[in-house]
Amino acid sequence: MQTIKASIITIGDELLIGQVIDTNSAWIAQELNKIGVWVKRRVAVGDVYHEIWKALDEESASSQIILITGGLGPTADDITKPLLCDYFGGKMIINEEVLAHVTYLFEHVFKRPMPLLESNRKQAEVPDVCTVLKNDVGTAPGMLFEKKGKIFISMPGVPHEMQFIMQKHVLPLIKMKFDLPFIDHRTLITMNVGESFLAERIKDFEKNLPANIKLAYLPNHGMVRLRLTAQGDKNEVEKVLEENFSILKKSVIDVMVIDEDISFEMLLGRLLKERNKTVATAESCTGGYIAHLITSVAGSSEYFKGSVVSYDNSIKKNVLHVDDVTLNTVGAVSEETVEQMIEGILNVMQTDYAVAVSGIMGPCGGSAEKPVGTVWIAVGNKNKIETKKFKFRFDRKRNIELTAVNALHLLCEFVKKN
Amino acid sequence: MQTIKASIITIGDELLIGQVIDTNSAWIAQELNKIGVWVKRRVAVGDVYHEIWKALDEESASSQIILITGGLGPTADDITKPLLCDYFGGKMIINEEVLAHVTYLFEHVFKRPMPLLESNRKQAEVPDVCTVLKNDVGTAPGMLFEKKGKIFISMPGVPHEMQFIMQKHVLPLIKMKFDLPFIDHRTLITMNVGESFLAERIKDFEKNLPANIKLAYLPNHGMVRLRLTAQGDKNEVEKVLEENFSILKKSVIDVMVIDEDISFEMLLGRLLKERNKTVATAESCTGGYIAHLITSVAGSSEYFKGSVVSYDNSIKKNVLHVDDVTLNTVGAVSEETVEQMIEGILNVMQTDYAVAVSGIMGPCGGSAEKPVGTVWIAVGNKNKIETKKFKFRFDRKRNIELTAVNALHLLCEFVKKN
Repeated sequence: MQTIKASIITIGDELLIGQVIDTNSAWIAQELNKIGVWVKRRVAVGDVYHEIWKALDEESASSQIILITGGLGPTADDITKPLLCDYFGGKMIINEEVLAHVTYLFEHVFKRPMPLLESNRKQAEVPDVCTVLKNDVGTAPGMLFEKKGKIFISMPGVPHEMQFIMQKHVLPLIKMKFDLPFIDHRTLITMNVGESFLAERIKDFEKNLPANIKLAYLPNHGMVRLRLTAQGDKNEVEKVLEENFSILKKSVIDVMVIDEDISFEMLLGRLLKERNKTVATAESCTGGYIAHLITSVAGSSEYFKGSVVSYDNSIKKNVLHVDDVTLNTVGAVSEETVEQMIEGILNVMQTDYAVAVSGIMGPCGGSAEKPVGTVWIAVGNKNKIETKKFKFRFDRKRNIELTAVNALHLLCEFVKKN
Repeated sequence: MQTIKASIITIGDELLIGQVIDTNSAWIAQELNKIGVWVKRRVAVGDVYHEIWKALDEESASSQIILITGGLGPTADDITKPLLCDYFGGKMIINEEVLAHVTYLFEHVFKRPMPLLESNRKQAEVPDVCTVLKNDVGTAPGMLFEKKGKIFISMPGVPHEMQFIMQKHVLPLIKMKFDLPFIDHRTLITMNVGESFLAERIKDFEKNLPANIKLAYLPNHGMVRLRLTAQGDKNEVEKVLEENFSILKKSVIDVMVIDEDISFEMLLGRLLKERNKTVATAESCTGGYIAHLITSVAGSSEYFKGSVVSYDNSIKKNVLHVDDVTLNTVGAVSEETVEQMIEGILNVMQTDYAVAVSGIMGPCGGSAEKPVGTVWIAVGNKNKIETKKFKFRFDRKRNIELTAVNALHLLCEFVKKN
């Protein structure tokens, strides 16, 4: 069994001036990882001929698989295709099947009134030394090249087109071509404990890990994910992973919130579906972000009824019936307010559970008594409400994210127990 | 004046297995670009000693500035600091100032009951050959090294800590050390026209551009951003940019939605503040995402009053007073429903403007008559409602994003005109 290494090359000036965040690389890495391919390096280069050439040389020196995204559009700044043609010593030819597909797309899907442009026809041009990987969901096809036993695959940078070509062509092809080792992970999530204290606590465990297992600490949003990764023969991998994961769980049981790599919105959906229950949110400072996270899960309409985003106090009062006196004395960012928001939203939405948040996200709106980052969260049902106060210390974006993550976590815990 | 090139090296296995999306590189690239530094390459490597070493060698061969993020945590998988110490031939020493800061953080900010751990003390250890860049917002300090005229800066991978160190130390330092050229951009955004048709239309413009200007096409969310970038002397750059941007604008005036690089939620805020008006959203299929985008803008409480996310039809009926007959005949995804959602939300929230959306985001819920991706959007005030039907062809996430972008765009246009 070989260890198969891959490099990802992303092409485009937009990546180097930061106008676009590269989400493709993470997606590709995840998929490769699942089938046992180790991503060794990721490189981003601009639309510069010799830079791309150099990256192809460098990455193919140490990786067997080189995946290239971007630079395949119909415009003049996209130079990847002619470069690949030069690099692999081919000449450009029209691929009739791709041309028929592009023509069909423009006539029947995009429904352009205009005739096909020269630049659209050019999308059907490919080097004669490549194998075309058909792109059913866009105009630019993928291309497969082989050189000195290395595999090079070029794909468009548009995420859903790249994903289609990966799933339809590239992953099956890699699985067929290589005898891949088995890689697997076990992940647990801890909350409210620092990376260094975790590490101190499990340092003996870490020291005694078998050579084919790696432990990683992944801190994010006030959580630390602990991930064990093992590689080798499938049965052996599963066995050592199970054994060691079970020891790890026992060591951190008091701070562990879940023993799998799942988001709280996914977990919430699972818990509610199991119980056949419904939920609603009443959001002030998160401005709908919690509802957005919940509804980003496919099938959430089964258990999510809706949300009232009561950004302005008049909405807290008129729609959620938060008491005027409460708002005028202890204020909108208070335990009393989030409790009343729960009562209000349960009444408006007629759900089994609800979550409510109110806080100050910054950069403005803070005071000495309630500085930026002060947040009250409540979760509850018609019998019981639980509240918790938080003090986050970050910028607006991160404060919103942390509030949402903690609200969903408290909600999951509440649903489990009530 | 020199052309100063930078490379960004991000370190961490989590990037190579795709568990974390690298947002740091885009942020760093943007900031460097603003001060006239060109990012030449971005490389991501794992927590592997010789891989990091090789990346340092390779990147410093062609770039003057090498920015390194990640791998500075207190745990055993973080090997960057000892490696840097070896690479620059130093030895590790405790930096007393950093130690005092770490001690203060643990005692007064994190309020840990436990004493400082050996691993926490280790965060105050730095190679004696570096200049410490103080990290006021976290425990791991930044480090500056110089070798053969090249500058190497190592920063923690936690985004807000990296950003603090960049803004406080790194950017001022680069501006001081190098005589930087001036780089500037002009961007306009087009909607509902393909990249290839745009390119065909402006091909003569592109052909005649001066050598120091580059044109880029950046397609995203049904929009194409056209960006002109020029480099050189400030006055000259501004002059040629203005001239050429003005020609470009005239060439695409009928499909251009705005002549600056700004999100619709930012534009909406500006338009409403200028007019001293308020807005609310009534969202079905976007599940609060439009409200989230609006409230991600600091100061949005000035003009955003709130939202009703009416995911379930009972909420459309009971809170927004959408007609029972409408829901039972033409259904929730219809022009009539979004019109009534506008009337309902204007009434509930008492705002000047409102936007409403209803659609089928997938993967389930579609029918022959209303396939996945069918969306109705309405925008309006108390005098007038405008509606538009969309058919998106993507996955759930992208359909939600496209619905939100188009809703905000229609809302901005409506506010401008009414």
